[in-house]
Amino acid sequence: CVAENRKLGLSWSKKAAADAEAVAAISCSGHGRAYLDGLVLNEKGFPVCECNSCYGGPDCSELSPACAVNAGSGDPYFLEPFWRQHAASSAVVVAGWHRMGYSYSDNTYMSQELEKRVRILHSIVGNAVTAGRYIVFGAGSTQLLNAAVNALSTDNSSMPAPVVASIPYYPVYKTQTDIFQSINYKFEGDASLWKNSTSDATVNVIEFVTSPNNPDGQPNKAVLSGPNAKAIHDHAYYWPHFSPIPTPADEDVMVFTISKLTGHAGTRFGWAIIKDKAVYDRMIQYMDLNTMGVSRDSQLRALKLLKVVIEGGGREIFDFGYKTMRDRWQKVSETLSKSKRFSLQKIAPQYCNFFHKVRESSPAYAWVKCEREEDRDCNAVLQGANINGRNGSVYSAEDRYVRLSLIRSQDDFDLLFQRLNKLV
Amino acid sequence: CVAENRKLGLSWSKKAAADAEAVAAISCSGHGRAYLDGLVLNEKGFPVCECNSCYGGPDCSELSPACAVNAGSGDPYFLEPFWRQHAASSAVVVAGWHRMGYSYSDNTYMSQELEKRVRILHSIVGNAVTAGRYIVFGAGSTQLLNAAVNALSTDNSSMPAPVVASIPYYPVYKTQTDIFQSINYKFEGDASLWKNSTSDATVNVIEFVTSPNNPDGQPNKAVLSGPNAKAIHDHAYYWPHFSPIPTPADEDVMVFTISKLTGHAGTRFGWAIIKDKAVYDRMIQYMDLNTMGVSRDSQLRALKLLKVVIEGGGREIFDFGYKTMRDRWQKVSETLSKSKRFSLQKIAPQYCNFFHKVRESSPAYAWVKCEREEDRDCNAVLQGANINGRNGSVYSAEDRYVRLSLIRSQDDFDLLFQRLNKLV
Repeated sequence: CVAENRKLGLSWSKKAAADAEAVAAISCSGHGRAYLDGLVLNEKGFPVCECNSCYGGPDCSELSPACAVNAGSGDPYFLEPFWRQHAASSAVVVAGWHRMGYSYSDNTYMSQELEKRVRILHSIVGNAVTAGRYIVFGAGSTQLLNAAVNALSTDNSSMPAPVVASIPYYPVYKTQTDIFQSINYKFEGDASLWKNSTSDATVNVIEFVTSPNNPDGQPNKAVLSGPNAKAIHDHAYYWPHFSPIPTPADEDVMVFTISKLTGHAGTRFGWAIIKDKAVYDRMIQYMDLNTMGVSRDSQLRALKLLKVVIEGGGREIFDFGYKTMRDRWQKVSETLSKSKRFSLQKIAPQYCNFFHKVRESSPAYAWVKCEREEDRDCNAVLQGANINGRNGSVYSAEDRYVRLSLIRSQDDFDLLFQRLNKLV
Repeated sequence: CVAENRKLGLSWSKKAAADAEAVAAISCSGHGRAYLDGLVLNEKGFPVCECNSCYGGPDCSELSPACAVNAGSGDPYFLEPFWRQHAASSAVVVAGWHRMGYSYSDNTYMSQELEKRVRILHSIVGNAVTAGRYIVFGAGSTQLLNAAVNALSTDNSSMPAPVVASIPYYPVYKTQTDIFQSINYKFEGDASLWKNSTSDATVNVIEFVTSPNNPDGQPNKAVLSGPNAKAIHDHAYYWPHFSPIPTPADEDVMVFTISKLTGHAGTRFGWAIIKDKAVYDRMIQYMDLNTMGVSRDSQLRALKLLKVVIEGGGREIFDFGYKTMRDRWQKVSETLSKSKRFSLQKIAPQYCNFFHKVRESSPAYAWVKCEREEDRDCNAVLQGANINGRNGSVYSAEDRYVRLSLIRSQDDFDLLFQRLNKLV
């Protein structure tokens, strides 16, 4: 056995490995999970279970029937079972002395091995052109959004560049742009109001284009055009889980994130694909001065995860993700179609070059409309049935709309589905 | 042996552990290290060695005698041997499904377990008051610097708040403040020029106070006072490695980082300690909108590292760090004292409540002055002896000064010391 252990070659990593496996073995009744860094409350010093919504008790075995299900936030737990199934290939052991310095061997803050994998990933999926393009890493797409706004605006111009988006839009575009209170740019809301202002404008108009869109899953295009119209294409959801992939995106500034690809929202890792060297240079400088690049630990983990995604041409994770999301979408669609009180967004099917067939979208969110005149607050209607979604006004739309998250855990979805069925 | 393995309880983590140990076993002749995410160039698919400066070849065994030693950057490799000695307690195994969601169990982006350890750490070291204070995490202290400037400035005020610092100062204060081009604040340089402007000012004046100072190690105090003077105390170097700890710091806004505490610059983890609830709220909002908090992977790793630091009351790491830095400082001081061509900063000894004795500083950087009239470019003089430091003008001082980094690897320091001896 000594020879066996020697062959296995494990010494200093054994304790950490045993700790991680012990925590992973805490079952939480299948309705939650324990983490290495979870709160330690019980007498044995073991981390406590963190339960799916409406489950509770020390081992998550107690369902509260009257509790409101969380259909609000976009935590992408739908992929958690995939990673549990791929435990051996996705685990990472970080040595205490791993990457203590600021730079990689090429004196940058970005792992070349990871950048290589990002390029391979896009060529496998066929969702973005990367040849001849620059890549910038960010702490999730979040950090890259403002880095891009900053890069596309001009220093010391006569007026701040308007930053706009098409309604309904992801609220962070506004709240993030606002918090920086920049001389160079200012959030101005609805993109369509700026259609006639781009041809003669002296300053850039910066348009966020989210495709597929959050909240409604539509394959959006830029509304503005002309030499001063600069678009930031947010492609967080442009993966086979959620959308047909008709063609590789090839816009000037494209933003992606692993949050909705592998489901690792907490790792805070995203990237931008950039055509123009000057824009790239400004974004890199922003990343350097904002955070000195992305955590090297996040980059190490993203590398391991992308290796698993890429294996076998991406079929495993996208089959899993697509089937899960399609199943959820079909269930929600069928249920809501039984009622005239609610309607659901419709997205046209398209040919998908990844699955080689015409397919429907299987969007991340249901964008539900309350059709009755009096149901002006649709979220309140759903809350009456113990469903917590997000108000349409969060996305600058009417509160007659609600966003329901379909990317959470299976427990969360099952409860949501059960309650929708009772409601209609 | 099956029973043995079962007792060890390892299954899915074995492969990752074996990979990490295999990479760690690449010796790189003691003059470098290989990383799990290093460039893979050789035919076996193994990561290549990343060598200390002036060492090269596939196994870092070749010293280039005429090469310039890197005494410029502040990569804190001086602590790498400590972590190699504490391999078992500092390793972390990250499961593929670790913390995929955005939030911890309390719906924040900050690990409570980690915050607890930060507070314990300060009480052990005695370098900061945390009782009744708020804590905000950042991607290194870097991100927190601007979060603090943002929080201390006022929205829609009549003029931007001046942001100032005492010369010589860390250049990121200026470059970072500049890149955000805010309506609310503006970098204005030398703090002492604003001494008479704070009593009657209607806007806050924001002063960066770095103590001990980078580059010169001095225990700086705020220059400005009065109701509108707001200081951000950057205590990155206020640890027993570098400085006596006379008293716990108790300022309104204090910034710390693991970079100069554990040596993990690449992990990008820092924290701010805040007295005022309104300032704390603004900083939390900034962190949420800038990056949605700090990578959960960074937080997991920081937790593990701080557990090792805290063990045994912090004696091990601070003994190691202090001895290393004191040894280097004594060597550099003795050497430079032989020459009238160069002089070195002097820092008054103080009683240290951590080591319970009067001790000298053992600063992170030598702040060298060329004393000869004609040596106006001191870095050029040192470059003539194959030493690459950083120009005084980087820190808004004269180029008659050079900063030499003493916190790099032992190889880097040994080469630096050898060359300084030849020069004087």
